[in-house]
Amino acid sequence: MPANTFGTCFAVTNFGESHGPAIGCVVDGCPPGLALNVSDIQPELDRRRPGTHRYVTQRQEPDTVEILSGVYEGHTTGTPICLLLRNMDQRSQDYANVARTFRPGHADYVYLQKYGLRDPRGGGRSSARLTAPMVAAGAIAKKWLRERHSIGFEACLTQIGELPILFEGWEHARHNPYFAPTSDTADIERYLEALRKSGDSCGAILRVRATAVPVGLGAPLFDKLDAEIAYAMMGINAVKGVEIGAGFASAAQHGSQHGDAMYPAGFGSNNAGGTLGGITTGQNLEVRVALKPTSSILIPRPSIDLDGHPTEVVTKGRHDPCVGLRAAPILEAMLALVVMDHALLHRAQCADVRCALAPIAGALPGEWPASA
Amino acid sequence: MPANTFGTCFAVTNFGESHGPAIGCVVDGCPPGLALNVSDIQPELDRRRPGTHRYVTQRQEPDTVEILSGVYEGHTTGTPICLLLRNMDQRSQDYANVARTFRPGHADYVYLQKYGLRDPRGGGRSSARLTAPMVAAGAIAKKWLRERHSIGFEACLTQIGELPILFEGWEHARHNPYFAPTSDTADIERYLEALRKSGDSCGAILRVRATAVPVGLGAPLFDKLDAEIAYAMMGINAVKGVEIGAGFASAAQHGSQHGDAMYPAGFGSNNAGGTLGGITTGQNLEVRVALKPTSSILIPRPSIDLDGHPTEVVTKGRHDPCVGLRAAPILEAMLALVVMDHALLHRAQCADVRCALAPIAGALPGEWPASA
Amino acid sequence: MPANTFGTCFAVTNFGESHGPAIGCVVDGCPPGLALNVSDIQPELDRRRPGTHRYVTQRQEPDTVEILSGVYEGHTTGTPICLLLRNMDQRSQDYANVARTFRPGHADYVYLQKYGLRDPRGGGRSSARLTAPMVAAGAIAKKWLRERHSIGFEACLTQIGELPILFEGWEHARHNPYFAPTSDTADIERYLEALRKSGDSCGAILRVRATAVPVGLGAPLFDKLDAEIAYAMMGINAVKGVEIGAGFASAAQHGSQHGDAMYPAGFGSNNAGGTLGGITTGQNLEVRVALKPTSSILIPRPSIDLDGHPTEVVTKGRHDPCVGLRAAPILEAMLALVVMDHALLHRAQCADVRCALAPIAGALPGEWPASA
Amino acid sequence: MPANTFGTCFAVTNFGESHGPAIGCVVDGCPPGLALNVSDIQPELDRRRPGTHRYVTQRQEPDTVEILSGVYEGHTTGTPICLLLRNMDQRSQDYANVARTFRPGHADYVYLQKYGLRDPRGGGRSSARLTAPMVAAGAIAKKWLRERHSIGFEACLTQIGELPILFEGWEHARHNPYFAPTSDTADIERYLEALRKSGDSCGAILRVRATAVPVGLGAPLFDKLDAEIAYAMMGINAVKGVEIGAGFASAAQHGSQHGDAMYPAGFGSNNAGGTLGGITTGQNLEVRVALKPTSSILIPRPSIDLDGHPTEVVTKGRHDPCVGLRAAPILEAMLALVVMDHALLHRAQCADVRCALAPIAGALPGEWPASA
Repeated sequence: MPANTFGTCFAVTNFGESHGPAIGCVVDGCPPGLALNVSDIQPELDRRRPGTHRYVTQRQEPDTVEILSGVYEGHTTGTPICLLLRNMDQRSQDYANVARTFRPGHADYVYLQKYGLRDPRGGGRSSARLTAPMVAAGAIAKKWLRERHSIGFEACLTQIGELPILFEGWEHARHNPYFAPTSDTADIERYLEALRKSGDSCGAILRVRATAVPVGLGAPLFDKLDAEIAYAMMGINAVKGVEIGAGFASAAQHGSQHGDAMYPAGFGSNNAGGTLGGITTGQNLEVRVALKPTSSILIPRPSIDLDGHPTEVVTKGRHDPCVGLRAAPILEAMLALVVMDHALLHRAQCADVRCALAPIAGALPGEWPASA
Repeated sequence: MPANTFGTCFAVTNFGESHGPAIGCVVDGCPPGLALNVSDIQPELDRRRPGTHRYVTQRQEPDTVEILSGVYEGHTTGTPICLLLRNMDQRSQDYANVARTFRPGHADYVYLQKYGLRDPRGGGRSSARLTAPMVAAGAIAKKWLRERHSIGFEACLTQIGELPILFEGWEHARHNPYFAPTSDTADIERYLEALRKSGDSCGAILRVRATAVPVGLGAPLFDKLDAEIAYAMMGINAVKGVEIGAGFASAAQHGSQHGDAMYPAGFGSNNAGGTLGGITTGQNLEVRVALKPTSSILIPRPSIDLDGHPTEVVTKGRHDPCVGLRAAPILEAMLALVVMDHALLHRAQCADVRCALAPIAGALPGEWPASA
Repeated sequence: MPANTFGTCFAVTNFGESHGPAIGCVVDGCPPGLALNVSDIQPELDRRRPGTHRYVTQRQEPDTVEILSGVYEGHTTGTPICLLLRNMDQRSQDYANVARTFRPGHADYVYLQKYGLRDPRGGGRSSARLTAPMVAAGAIAKKWLRERHSIGFEACLTQIGELPILFEGWEHARHNPYFAPTSDTADIERYLEALRKSGDSCGAILRVRATAVPVGLGAPLFDKLDAEIAYAMMGINAVKGVEIGAGFASAAQHGSQHGDAMYPAGFGSNNAGGTLGGITTGQNLEVRVALKPTSSILIPRPSIDLDGHPTEVVTKGRHDPCVGLRAAPILEAMLALVVMDHALLHRAQCADVRCALAPIAGALPGEWPASA
Repeated sequence: MPANTFGTCFAVTNFGESHGPAIGCVVDGCPPGLALNVSDIQPELDRRRPGTHRYVTQRQEPDTVEILSGVYEGHTTGTPICLLLRNMDQRSQDYANVARTFRPGHADYVYLQKYGLRDPRGGGRSSARLTAPMVAAGAIAKKWLRERHSIGFEACLTQIGELPILFEGWEHARHNPYFAPTSDTADIERYLEALRKSGDSCGAILRVRATAVPVGLGAPLFDKLDAEIAYAMMGINAVKGVEIGAGFASAAQHGSQHGDAMYPAGFGSNNAGGTLGGITTGQNLEVRVALKPTSSILIPRPSIDLDGHPTEVVTKGRHDPCVGLRAAPILEAMLALVVMDHALLHRAQCADVRCALAPIAGALPGEWPASA
């Protein structure tokens, strides 16, 4: 599969650079007849947009999406859907110094070594800006999955830097700009303000889930649904860790404790995180993701220049002190793309299957493992 | 890409069931001219083999590999290499009861729901036995990468159940049956003995690394090397979490601390785990993986039967109380397959590239992040 | 996609060499629940088998197929189906001279140039013997398509060397060893006897069709059904030309003549050969294929040896004087694999589609273009 | 592989409809460091452009290409190259009647049956206009192959309707608007004038070749270079037949005549058309393609309407009476894309191979088979 194409039956090909003329994607394999227009996609892009509050990059990008193909009279035709976003607010001069040195934690050095040249403006292809087309493509997947299967997706912030965030409920994550599932964001703001003043950055942990997922999506190997999720999440900028269900905590569990008991009314818990043997159980998909701190900081770091000589780097320009603050819509979109592809793959192979046993209900109350 | 095929240029197609006539794989795209015979593959299979000590399943499988194609007069020809392993020690009667009930934590239920029928013998396709062909394919990748690039792979056990394992050095992991990097395995044996008596199982955490990896392997997106690693690792039976470099610990780090400083002599640390922007840095690839406890235990669990009625399940048959004990060779193999595929993909696109800047040396002493 | 894997949703990975231990394939993505055992596959292999009469190679290969995976209690499970055929009648000594020289029209030279080494025994991987696993895989596709959609496949010989063969009806092609659609094969036998005596070989043209194909299979581009057919057919050994419907004759046609008129009762003709814009029309798929004469002949040919010196080559060993005589089952199998893959791909994307307009009936009598 | 993506290592994803806002493609896997700007691509688009003389469609499309990504300071960066062409001269009203009826020979009917809806404007996705992005992508492949390997591509018209065209030399094909390899185009113009007056259309045969192709590109199966070429050519609008080398004529040849003799100085002929066993021989790739007559004609044809009732269709709007007149640059582009992908695939697997035997020179004079 080409490197920049994601998915098999519902396949998204991503293109663009942070400071090039435009970014976008081509969505191939979308079922025909889905009602679709810009207003179905723009809100998701707006959730991810920069410049919405003081703790994210101040780059002003309307991220207005244009549908170039695959839609006729408000419905998908089954042909490729090209989504285009023009870059508006490039300040390439900010990156003049970057072109001569390598920013620790950045892809500058490896791009030069791999390709022999690089586009230094805003990190070029390595910019988190390239997640915008994925959010746009994810909006199409989300809509089809919601309308066809009532599947929902939501993500929230569970830790920012050293600060754990109390989970008070999903609804809160929808009503503050940090996607924090808490009623009071004062601590978060205090933490971010101190961070901003220090000129430093911090990491984060987010949780993302899919609800009302039908049983049976995925494959034994290698395209296990959890393997595909891990691929999708680890492919997001700054992500350094992924866990499903009980995740790393399962190492210290015993089988008698981890294995989710089954009852006619449903599973007794969800340590599995909604997948067994790579196939969905009908419970919620539960995923946690760790993001590293942004590499672009105002604190001087030791580095080298194009000639390999020692130097010191301070990253000016506009950056997010914590990419985790804007990651929620991206995680939702990537999870939606995985589920969408497998929803189509499943009916390709198993459209005729009728199982004698009715699916048991999803998990019972209190299903989410302690680790979350 | 077909679900059971792994990789693009070096592609492994896996087939077989735990208690069918045979398991195996087809390795497509192997460079021609590699000296290869059974003795290059068998030792890796022997490292993973069951029945080697009392704390693993007692199923007796010689796992003798047969090379059916792609090798002529001791060298690979560039055509597909089919590796076959006959199943010898099936005791399908052990699984008579399994066919009527669902084992909590097992794939029984989802297979039935997805496919409408299932092969219950030894878990059929969901058995960890299917990792054997991957170890065999990985042996080919390991040999080519070692001879061509001096790249090495090794894995070790860092936690078993609640018991953390002191890292005293890689050499120890090669000299005890638990792949534990410690000089004294008494604690481990005491822990396993108690576990065995309890009839329960436990999880584990393993660390796997690749050494002498050249800079430049991977892609910006989506086929980031770390994304491919996450896909490969999460695709291994029982794996619930994957992290690269500092992993989940990076969430609590600040940019000034996480970003690996660069010096003419090399990187100052390896929080990145050997990859930046999805491309190798030239440092070691450092990965940690969490495995859940085995689902097959002697302790009764609540479950349902084929008619959806409540029942209780006790899993007889032969099982590993901790799959982590045999996972090290599997992790090495899967990591080798990812690196191999990208070594070939890299020269497809970038064989002509000559970078003006010489790669800086790998990481300095003490490079591995605190989190490990 | 790996080179040796054919198809996306119904994917066949082929392995083996003419004189290696075995040949075979792995069929990935087969729908579960299909009743399948050896007796469903063996008859197709027997139709293709060598040694059945004096005008084909006398190599004796029972081509007994073994199902190694993917089938449980007589039904497909949805997991990969590995089909194995052991090679029984190798006479590698026949190829001793071949290893030192290059046979004109053979792949010897290009294999050596590409791979730096080659397996000369029986042409190694380039042998037509590798079509056997495709016939076996095709048998699975044929069975599912017949049972699920009543789709049928049949091929016949329409020209052998300079000798055109009168088409008297498909039934005849089933009752003579040459797959000739004629009641009297005396001319064919006379032609073949003279050919055999001359020590020379000849080419052939075959026709293959699929009947009762539903409307809507395929894609606008690039995976047009006719493009996939062309890929499948041109991939068969010795094939040098492929045409769909009116094919090359359509060049001399005018639009008023070529475009198949449409009536409520169906199409008025089938110059399209069953596909428009890359998508099936509901008419029969009609394909014609040209095969070159076998390269292995007893007549001396100018060639070069391993050192590049001029020499003369006579090919001993056992060969078909006309591969067209055994090609019919192969063409049917490859066409079935294309239709099968697209039947699954179609329901992946379009399972929900309900078209207001009922499909019109297939073509009216006399639908097949003059060119055939 | 997604349906609208062509190629594995050098992969082109095509999007757009004839009368949508834009058409274009994303080129993934292009080697970095290739000097590239619009002026490298535009000339190829201009060769294919409509409206250049009275015998092609009068639709006025500048087909000005915009490079949206993957190029920095005039060189490819190794990241995806998005090429965009805005549609300028839509006259959708021309297609009002088309939306109610089905044009014989057109994809209207099958699109509706497959997708349940269709974009009727200019044939939507089925329009030959979608070959423009392929010509643009092909221009990149051509440039890299020319600069890196001195490989050349050229195509010419060899038959138009019933009129065969005398081959006087490639240079002529470059100096008349019909890509005819002849010094005198009077007959062609007379033929086209009569055709235009009749309101009918005609088919054509074209020849395309690649020169200076290195030996060793391709694979034994299934991705034989000739199979990939057949797939690429049959995927072009209106193509109904493809042949390589002697093609259909090889059916009537004998082995002693067809097999190209080998001499230290090179091959004695090129009946193979530059490929043996699916791998390039080092001779020119020689391909012939048959195109059907355009389906849009002014002569009334029997058809049906959306309700399945009989009707008569006359296609107004602007159309090519013979698509063969503009097909040459498209054939060259598609052939270049195949060779490019395999040039990269070859070095992925075989970059290390050194063959002891130096490649023999390309074919001797008079190498092209009689069939051409």
